[in-house]
Amino acid sequence: MTNLPRKDLFEMPEGLIYLDGNSLGPLPKSVPAKLAQVVNDEWGQHLIRGWNVDDWMGQPVSIADRMGHLIGAAPGTCVLGDTLSLKVHQALSAALVLRPGRKTVLSDTGNFPTDLYMAQGLIRQLDQGHELKTVAPEEVADHITEDVAVVMLTHVDYRTGRMHDMAAITERAHAAGAVMIWDLAHSAGAVPVDLEGCRAEFAVGCTYKYINAGPGSPAFIYVRPDVSGEVFPALSGWLGHEAPFAFDPDYRPGPGIERFRVGTPPVLQVAALDAALDAWDGVEMEDIRRASVALCEQFIAEVEARVPALTLASPRDASQRGSQVSFHFEHGYAAMQALIARNVIGDFRAPDIMRFGFTPLYLGPEDVTGAVDILAKVMDGKLWDRPEYHARSRVT
Amino acid sequence: MTNLPRKDLFEMPEGLIYLDGNSLGPLPKSVPAKLAQVVNDEWGQHLIRGWNVDDWMGQPVSIADRMGHLIGAAPGTCVLGDTLSLKVHQALSAALVLRPGRKTVLSDTGNFPTDLYMAQGLIRQLDQGHELKTVAPEEVADHITEDVAVVMLTHVDYRTGRMHDMAAITERAHAAGAVMIWDLAHSAGAVPVDLEGCRAEFAVGCTYKYINAGPGSPAFIYVRPDVSGEVFPALSGWLGHEAPFAFDPDYRPGPGIERFRVGTPPVLQVAALDAALDAWDGVEMEDIRRASVALCEQFIAEVEARVPALTLASPRDASQRGSQVSFHFEHGYAAMQALIARNVIGDFRAPDIMRFGFTPLYLGPEDVTGAVDILAKVMDGKLWDRPEYHARSRVT
Repeated sequence: MTNLPRKDLFEMPEGLIYLDGNSLGPLPKSVPAKLAQVVNDEWGQHLIRGWNVDDWMGQPVSIADRMGHLIGAAPGTCVLGDTLSLKVHQALSAALVLRPGRKTVLSDTGNFPTDLYMAQGLIRQLDQGHELKTVAPEEVADHITEDVAVVMLTHVDYRTGRMHDMAAITERAHAAGAVMIWDLAHSAGAVPVDLEGCRAEFAVGCTYKYINAGPGSPAFIYVRPDVSGEVFPALSGWLGHEAPFAFDPDYRPGPGIERFRVGTPPVLQVAALDAALDAWDGVEMEDIRRASVALCEQFIAEVEARVPALTLASPRDASQRGSQVSFHFEHGYAAMQALIARNVIGDFRAPDIMRFGFTPLYLGPEDVTGAVDILAKVMDGKLWDRPEYHARSRVT
Repeated sequence: MTNLPRKDLFEMPEGLIYLDGNSLGPLPKSVPAKLAQVVNDEWGQHLIRGWNVDDWMGQPVSIADRMGHLIGAAPGTCVLGDTLSLKVHQALSAALVLRPGRKTVLSDTGNFPTDLYMAQGLIRQLDQGHELKTVAPEEVADHITEDVAVVMLTHVDYRTGRMHDMAAITERAHAAGAVMIWDLAHSAGAVPVDLEGCRAEFAVGCTYKYINAGPGSPAFIYVRPDVSGEVFPALSGWLGHEAPFAFDPDYRPGPGIERFRVGTPPVLQVAALDAALDAWDGVEMEDIRRASVALCEQFIAEVEARVPALTLASPRDASQRGSQVSFHFEHGYAAMQALIARNVIGDFRAPDIMRFGFTPLYLGPEDVTGAVDILAKVMDGKLWDRPEYHARSRVT
């Protein structure tokens, strides 16, 4: 059993209660030294030779393998690179080719906007009569009909934490002959995921949230092994070529997951991810889940007992919730600013959601109580009503 | 006038003569402290607030502006992100939409393979009858006919250093009603480029070669201001949305160049680029060019005088050459390995090209002579004939 939390592995400003690891994880203490080593010793001393001697070239697969146990992916089925938005484009583009006779992409209104935007852009670009259909999350299963080419969903809703039943929906999609794409942005490192078991064709995700790999860390794409070799990739970049350094004029896709590489990997960001994964060594996702549920339940109970103005936006049933808890409050934006000014960091999502992430790697029950103490003060004193908390910043 | 070289601004292993800055630039001394500051102070202390207080969100444009003088781009016309391959996809996809009635993408056999691969993948994905036509570099102008939708070229040939006349070809493309895309991978920071003056619609490039921003540093895309607002981007990610944090379900493109953003910017790699640009402060590209031509001419003269087995693969006329010099040699791969083993780093490109980059920011005439001394020893002694220099590594 994993001993949690592991606070000593993370930098955390004195007195801060950080409930926004679902947006950007904190700095693992292992990162600065690793980055300094890669910069000074590898880039600085090896220069171009780093691609070989430090295996910069192999890392997008080898370091993706290091995080495989967080998402139930076998070695060699994931590759790092680019951003989640681009990985959605790759997965969806490939999925549509796998179902040439079907024109519907089914998603839900709880999907993260960039997934929907990338689908809209791709559909417009292809100009082949595809349609993006979005339904309410609870109605997805009923809309998986035989005209659906692809079901594309985010596993855990970014606003409410509502969690889809990955196994059941994937099974339903496959029964209807549709391809399944899961976005694991709010799942990887947050809740147990069994990609191999559910047999989804594609999954995508990012590593800067629960995995703590830093701002702008690389995304990943998982492709089921029997599918990856069947797809001619749309974003056919040279590092996905069968022989990138042969400099052939014609693209020939590399074996399996390799063909989902595009361009030069972001070596410094990959190094930060590598170091961030140290904090996950020996961690069982079941233990993370148990601790996460306990923190979330505690938070809900304490908020409901002490802060009645907030109403729960997340599912009450822990089994249908990811690793975050959200509450509705009419003045949620200002209240969150007032909280942040008092060293409790969560975030706000329009129109009225105050969102709090619970990350058992570095949070314990004392943090939950400390956060609710301050939340109660902000609400009891109507501190959110001060004008300075109403100015909108660009990123909220 | 810029005082060159500025060797004190770069880390360089003792005794190494580095002639591969056209592939990966060396470590600027300003980078480690900048990275440590961004990691420890911004990520570590500000956490999610870094997007606002440290302007991580604005940097893809503001730091692209810092490099604008290297490529003749006005502020607000470039944005950083992703990889060059993806920027090719963005530019080409947008260009084809601008010329709906035309089906030919014209390029040349000297283009870098990933540009051709990305075009092949996009054409296949679109399935709208487009054709990629590649002709010999010197025949490009003659093939710019009225059926050409897009002329897509790399300004400086990665193998030979042969340089296109950017102004003349762009003018020819426009006269025929075609859209122009320039790949500046081997030009940015290497030779003067005047994007504003030549009126090309699109340019793309990378920052890890002559700009020295490190392995996997972000690419850039330039879009002519009157064009950027006309294009609905194919890779329509949330950070290119008019209001990314409104979380609208529908994509609405942001103003101008902003719509060519896709996903979360790679903050650590952007920080390294920002620091690398310090070495370019006050540098005039005309001074770089003058010094670059002098180094290249010196190298050609010394090699031809002392190493007759090598035959020049680059244009002899400096005005038609970028900032690299290449020679043919039948056993070029092994000879390059033998050189590298003796601390002179260039690289090899199939089938028989030994390639040497000249970068006046950190190289002086003494480095040229030193490199030729060792090259002459390797060739005179047939040192390349040893078996250890014939084993192929993955990246050559």
